[in-house]
Amino acid sequence: MSYDAKANDMPDHSKFDNVFVDPQAYHSFLETGTWPDKTMIVLEGRQARSRGSINLRGHYQGTQVTGFEVHVKDESRFPGKWAFFDFDSPTSNGTLIPTKASCYSCHADHAAVDTTFVQFYPTLLPIAEKKGTLSAAYIKEEAASAAAK
Amino acid sequence: MSYDAKANDMPDHSKFDNVFVDPQAYHSFLETGTWPDKTMIVLEGRQARSRGSINLRGHYQGTQVTGFEVHVKDESRFPGKWAFFDFDSPTSNGTLIPTKASCYSCHADHAAVDTTFVQFYPTLLPIAEKKGTLSAAYIKEEAASAAAK
Repeated sequence: MSYDAKANDMPDHSKFDNVFVDPQAYHSFLETGTWPDKTMIVLEGRQARSRGSINLRGHYQGTQVTGFEVHVKDESRFPGKWAFFDFDSPTSNGTLIPTKASCYSCHADHAAVDTTFVQFYPTLLPIAEKKGTLSAAYIKEEAASAAAK
Repeated sequence: MSYDAKANDMPDHSKFDNVFVDPQAYHSFLETGTWPDKTMIVLEGRQARSRGSINLRGHYQGTQVTGFEVHVKDESRFPGKWAFFDFDSPTSNGTLIPTKASCYSCHADHAAVDTTFVQFYPTLLPIAEKKGTLSAAYIKEEAASAAAK
C-alpha cells in the first residue's frame, strides 16, 4: 500500500509493509482500544516477490528488508506524546525525525486511534470502534467519505 | 499470491493469505529448522481493500475473513504425519480433507520443509537453510530453476 499518488522511481519493485508492536502494548490495546505509554510500533518494509517456487500470481514476502522506522509513545519525553525514529541499520541507533516532518501532521490529521493508522489493521479497528477510542478527525473524515458515495 | 494459473471468477477481489503457527512450534522451528509433533498452522484468507482512508495504491487487509484451513502435524494419528482440515466457521469443528486431495501431493512435492511452504516465509527460510532441513524435492526444484535462468 502507499499514500503517494505517484508511482515511485522503481515501479516494478513493490513491497510489503509489516507492522509490529510490543506484546504488552498490544494486550493493553485489546483491553482499552488505545495505546499505553511506552508503546513501540515498528514499520518494516520488505521486498515483494512474485515469481518463485509454485507461485503464479500475486506476491509473497522476500528475504530483503528495505528499511524500517519506529513510532514510540513516551509522554514524559515527547511534547506530542509520540515520536518517529528512522533507522539506517538494525544494529545502530535511530534518528529522531523532526516534528515538522509530514509524518507527524498526517498521523495527527488522519489516523484512527491516538495518531496511529488502526484503520489498516482489521483485528484492531473493531476494538477501537467498540471502546469508543476513534479520533474525532477520523470519524469526521469517514463520515464525509460515506456521504460522498 | 496464488498457485492457480487462471484468475478466479472474481478478478477484482484480491486477498491476503495470513499464516499463523502456535508459538511453541514456532520457537521449536527457530532451534531446529523444522516442525515438532503437534504443530498447528492456520491459513487465513482475508479480503484485500485498496480504496480507504489515505491509501492511494496497493492493498491493505480488510475486516472480512474469507475462510481458513488448518494444517496439523500428529505423527501418531495421521499416516502421512500431517493432515489438512477445512473450516466453514470459526466456531464449528473442521472437516478432514481426504489424503487424495491435491493439497497433500503438492505440499509433498514442492514444499521447502517437512511438507510446509517455508519458501514463502522469509524469516524462517534462512533458518532451514542453516539447519539443513530443506527437503530434497525443494533443493532439486530450486537447482533446476536456477539452471534454467
